[in-house]
Amino acid sequence: MNRNGNKRYSLQRAQQAISENIKQLPGEVVDIKDGMLRVTSSDVAAVLPQPSFDESTRDGYVIPLFSGSDHGINHYKIVDEIPAGKVRVNTLKPGTACRIMTGGCVLKGGTRVVPFENCVEENGEVIISDHLLQSTRSFIRKAGSEIKKGERLVAGGVVLEPMHLAQLSSCGVHFVVVTKKPSVGYFCTGSELKGSSNGLEKGEKVSSNSFLLQGLLTSFGCCPENLGIIEDNRQDLHDLFVKAKEQGLDAIISTGGMGPGKYDLVKEAFVKAGGQVIFTSLKMRPGKSVLFGTLGNTLFFGLPGPPHAVQTLFNMLVGPTLLAMQGVRASWPQKVQASLHHSVRAKRHDVLRLKDGMLVQERGRCKVRFTKKLELANCYILLLSGREYYPEGELVDVYLTTSLCLV
Amino acid sequence: MNRNGNKRYSLQRAQQAISENIKQLPGEVVDIKDGMLRVTSSDVAAVLPQPSFDESTRDGYVIPLFSGSDHGINHYKIVDEIPAGKVRVNTLKPGTACRIMTGGCVLKGGTRVVPFENCVEENGEVIISDHLLQSTRSFIRKAGSEIKKGERLVAGGVVLEPMHLAQLSSCGVHFVVVTKKPSVGYFCTGSELKGSSNGLEKGEKVSSNSFLLQGLLTSFGCCPENLGIIEDNRQDLHDLFVKAKEQGLDAIISTGGMGPGKYDLVKEAFVKAGGQVIFTSLKMRPGKSVLFGTLGNTLFFGLPGPPHAVQTLFNMLVGPTLLAMQGVRASWPQKVQASLHHSVRAKRHDVLRLKDGMLVQERGRCKVRFTKKLELANCYILLLSGREYYPEGELVDVYLTTSLCLV
Repeated sequence: MNRNGNKRYSLQRAQQAISENIKQLPGEVVDIKDGMLRVTSSDVAAVLPQPSFDESTRDGYVIPLFSGSDHGINHYKIVDEIPAGKVRVNTLKPGTACRIMTGGCVLKGGTRVVPFENCVEENGEVIISDHLLQSTRSFIRKAGSEIKKGERLVAGGVVLEPMHLAQLSSCGVHFVVVTKKPSVGYFCTGSELKGSSNGLEKGEKVSSNSFLLQGLLTSFGCCPENLGIIEDNRQDLHDLFVKAKEQGLDAIISTGGMGPGKYDLVKEAFVKAGGQVIFTSLKMRPGKSVLFGTLGNTLFFGLPGPPHAVQTLFNMLVGPTLLAMQGVRASWPQKVQASLHHSVRAKRHDVLRLKDGMLVQERGRCKVRFTKKLELANCYILLLSGREYYPEGELVDVYLTTSLCLV
Repeated sequence: MNRNGNKRYSLQRAQQAISENIKQLPGEVVDIKDGMLRVTSSDVAAVLPQPSFDESTRDGYVIPLFSGSDHGINHYKIVDEIPAGKVRVNTLKPGTACRIMTGGCVLKGGTRVVPFENCVEENGEVIISDHLLQSTRSFIRKAGSEIKKGERLVAGGVVLEPMHLAQLSSCGVHFVVVTKKPSVGYFCTGSELKGSSNGLEKGEKVSSNSFLLQGLLTSFGCCPENLGIIEDNRQDLHDLFVKAKEQGLDAIISTGGMGPGKYDLVKEAFVKAGGQVIFTSLKMRPGKSVLFGTLGNTLFFGLPGPPHAVQTLFNMLVGPTLLAMQGVRASWPQKVQASLHHSVRAKRHDVLRLKDGMLVQERGRCKVRFTKKLELANCYILLLSGREYYPEGELVDVYLTTSLCLV
């Protein structure tokens, strides 16, 4: 702690401190129809094997066990036809065959399917040459050959995608236990902020962070609750924290009011409402002013005002925390390496900086460049403390951004 | 066209043929609050400049033009304080200063802000040394210095992310024209298919493609409409196409019924209902049976039955088409290169194959491996026709999967 009562953490230590305070939220049962982008609370096992019956993989003839031929030619009397979805309860007798369609259920006694195109059918018989019967391919998918009953289909902590839902449905799973979506309240502080540019006076601004947080929270699988725009006023901020604490929100996010100035009152109000401060600053830019703490069972992130810093700190700290609360494993941004597309001369190099980057792939290599004006980053480039110059082509560390909804 | 009336296209030619039939859907006006993951129909320009007034970037003192000092020391009488959100209509006179907060509106006559920490305040005066006034940094963000009124904020064809919404809001944009979400009907054919595993009889299966398509269509920004499970029956299929045509859907997707068998009736019913077939097969696996055509103004994709093939063909053909209908630029899957993590010996190599791949980044290089059982692909590895063996480390082509909602 420095003389201003600031607890200044490295990014790594900050992530560690946050991790120690994350509790995975309880599970809730949802119909798999409603499972998209939800996170499994625990492993999900197959109720039915896959396939659930011996299934033909071709349109052809299902025949019984090979039992010796007449000069290399076998004749089978066709006794039935089995389309997909129909079952025959009788047993296939020696010397008989059934026509069967792809997906059809192989009846008892049937040991292989011979595709139509390899056979001749005449006078109610199918004629099959010996060499086809020596093939090791039976064109039958045996029951349970792909997935056994009770086998794990999806691990816990996995974000459900369309293919998972399809797999669950075919294995007889109707409902799945997913982690509750975090309820996250957010507010933006600043006496200059208005909800809309309608009737905006000089000196006033639109609270663009409200739009940013609403969108980011949705992208990270949360139920966002807009707690409003709060003036730089001790009482209003205090009341908000007290009320939010009673609401039992899983997390609260604020923007603004985090500097050292006389109107920067978020920390004071948070502490007065009973909040426990864990850190107030990062050894990183952006991140000079960012508060993390707990208010009862609610996690609190006090972010600075500038939207660009809000976005970066959200992606680096808040979003991963909200994913971890949903049970997503390894939710901290992944660090990879990429070679710089251009040289970089850093103006300030007394502290780690995260710069908006655009990661691209070229001939099997990862390259990264700074974003252009108004271009949105897909990664953050780390410029290390003490390094002033990076030549073009140097391999630098890059954090990938993640969310449930990307583009 | 081959002797079966099949039009067999290369992947590239198929994409070309589809592109020629895509019409961008009309625009609709939405509140920016509802803009998340919608696609802009055209460029969006700033209504207000950014910032919209001369704004202090520090807590400090705003002072008038430097006008000579007393032995390197300047005294200014403090006449007011300007918090963020408040405007002063008077002009700053020579020899006076105002306290101003970060984000505060610089009053007329103010030419620079000197941060608090660099000054001494005593007896109602602020004392500032000459050398601070020689700095080129004014700590004032001039109106319009970041974004000019009328400047393009977002290009047409861009998927709106949270940061875009924040930028639009602060530049006075309330509404944005986005492309209509495609209305897409889907149905799954197969007499063996049921909507749920409740009461499933032997030989029957859950229509897992219904879950898959519902999820994929949502991920690609569409309004999905489940047209049901259709038995392998000429009349039912015909009636469905006729009804769907009248509904004015933007696209229809089907699964199953696409093989050469006697119960594979989708193509026949499509043509009988007035559909124009463009291709019926790809020179690629999966893709042996995939129909693309038009039914009036509706695009139709007839996909095969196996869910894995549905997923691959959806990602390679259908999804990008639906993004392009929304105006997304360059929506076809991006091809990149990655080095193989393991050698590959292809069983069949008479045709291009797309294999489920997992692309990872290691020390600035892109590597790719086959997916494990039940693991979902993040790319498709191209195994070329005529190539039987690929050694470990070889650079191969890989298609990246895209959607609006990924993980």
